[in-house]
Amino acid sequence: MDVLTTQTLSGVQTSIEIAGTVAFALSGVMEAARKKLDAVGVCAVASVAAFGGGTLRDVLLDRRPLFWIEQSWYLWSVLGLCIAAMVLMRAKHFKPTEKSMQWPDALGLGLFAASGTQIALGLQMPALIAVLMGVITATFGGVLRDIVCNEIPTAFHDHHPYAVCAFAGGWVVVVLHYLGFYPNAVVAIGAATVTLLRLAALQFEWRLPTWKIED
Amino acid sequence: MDVLTTQTLSGVQTSIEIAGTVAFALSGVMEAARKKLDAVGVCAVASVAAFGGGTLRDVLLDRRPLFWIEQSWYLWSVLGLCIAAMVLMRAKHFKPTEKSMQWPDALGLGLFAASGTQIALGLQMPALIAVLMGVITATFGGVLRDIVCNEIPTAFHDHHPYAVCAFAGGWVVVVLHYLGFYPNAVVAIGAATVTLLRLAALQFEWRLPTWKIED
Amino acid sequence: MDVLTTQTLSGVQTSIEIAGTVAFALSGVMEAARKKLDAVGVCAVASVAAFGGGTLRDVLLDRRPLFWIEQSWYLWSVLGLCIAAMVLMRAKHFKPTEKSMQWPDALGLGLFAASGTQIALGLQMPALIAVLMGVITATFGGVLRDIVCNEIPTAFHDHHPYAVCAFAGGWVVVVLHYLGFYPNAVVAIGAATVTLLRLAALQFEWRLPTWKIED
Repeated sequence: MDVLTTQTLSGVQTSIEIAGTVAFALSGVMEAARKKLDAVGVCAVASVAAFGGGTLRDVLLDRRPLFWIEQSWYLWSVLGLCIAAMVLMRAKHFKPTEKSMQWPDALGLGLFAASGTQIALGLQMPALIAVLMGVITATFGGVLRDIVCNEIPTAFHDHHPYAVCAFAGGWVVVVLHYLGFYPNAVVAIGAATVTLLRLAALQFEWRLPTWKIED
Repeated sequence: MDVLTTQTLSGVQTSIEIAGTVAFALSGVMEAARKKLDAVGVCAVASVAAFGGGTLRDVLLDRRPLFWIEQSWYLWSVLGLCIAAMVLMRAKHFKPTEKSMQWPDALGLGLFAASGTQIALGLQMPALIAVLMGVITATFGGVLRDIVCNEIPTAFHDHHPYAVCAFAGGWVVVVLHYLGFYPNAVVAIGAATVTLLRLAALQFEWRLPTWKIED
Repeated sequence: MDVLTTQTLSGVQTSIEIAGTVAFALSGVMEAARKKLDAVGVCAVASVAAFGGGTLRDVLLDRRPLFWIEQSWYLWSVLGLCIAAMVLMRAKHFKPTEKSMQWPDALGLGLFAASGTQIALGLQMPALIAVLMGVITATFGGVLRDIVCNEIPTAFHDHHPYAVCAFAGGWVVVVLHYLGFYPNAVVAIGAATVTLLRLAALQFEWRLPTWKIED
């Protein structure tokens, strides 16, 4: 089913996946720029942000070859994107606003969470592990990006639902998978759930429940 | 022998292993609290602290499935512990003191070092590698916890014997292993050695030999 | 070819490889000293600097056993080096200058980049992936060293060509490999290219093209 899913990925899904990868890579470019990294640092941090989550998932599950090794146009694309972004930023003082990146980022979050969960289910992982693999796929690119840039990961301290949306959507994928839905439908509904949850969280300014500790 | 060891793990050993995992997870909760992470960050850092060392060992040795994937009740337990800790800290201003965590932490250090060494010996690793795998199992959860929280790892700069206790106990495991002791006895004696060394180090305030460098 | 290459490594190449490993390990010792780590931290950071790049490459490519596990004299050597360095620094206030480490560092960069690329080519990786594996082998020891020491990686923000030299030399390896040169010649010419580029970059103070971003 895993292989089947990959083979029958429709053009729409592929487009969304590319949009998500681009959004994650751009988030890396932006953070690298804030930290005044050089050109090598920009490409490295963008790659870590775009591929880090899926790579960690595959290393934990022992799946090889890694997706960006098997389909190396991914790497070329991110390299091209970085060079284009650096040239644009230099020439036009163009800078993607945080707002303009929320939509593709939410799309990427959804698709990576849903496909990561499904890949793990295809390997007969138990439900909790599969959901966790989806969360790792969707969020650890950003976590590793922040660690490389010497910051505490945003996903761990901004009190906004991000990993939690991926977690919730992962359970939707699990339920639909066990109900026997077509793989494509499972990914589509799961990804849409995550993306809509994330957009709602941004729109309505939901916050994670707070908890206090004296210092 | 590796499989046998796992199968014949007595209830006592399992209890110690759980106590160690709980202590390591709690150390993650505490550090996450100090850094004012949100609920997601607390769970993530606690998991990294509890499972990071064993996971790195298994990735380096190419052992799969990972122990927390095979026995996913580990993950449920740590998630439950995190929620309980957050609720308790919020309601009761309860905070485990550093002192109260030294005992379970020393137990965890001992058992993880001894079992990590034995697992590597079971895979025919040379002695130094096996001892090193024990040290990694016992200490890299804490190291990764500190890296995620944007700190220099405590194990690398507090000048107290911690990894060194695991290193010494690892050699005890190696010697007993080659002398043909029963696997359970090897782990028990090795773990006890590490734990006692660590408690002695705390009690008598041993320090690593200092060395100076001008700036 | 991969195996063949390893088997026919000449004494000269082995010496260079050792010089590179020593240089990388020493860079770890130096950074650990600047950060006032303890003896455990010095050994850990030196090992990460010396073995981190090759280890990450092998984990990404799923090559086992890892080179420092198969040939554990590597580990003994780095441990011995650390102890010697600590004793020397303490007794004699001896400190390797940054300048004195540039030569062995450039040698290590060259040999690790060339051999990393060739190993990946031997596994039938596409050209871009192979070159990238060379860059990772040569630079990620230093990157991980800086992350552990809570710094933004130097390779990502000092605006001097470092990874770029490894990248350029990797393509030389790829071209010579496809032209059918002997493996030893491929590594030798590739490594020399990287090393000379790096030394030229230092000598003539080349800088990466700058790009601006408003804050």
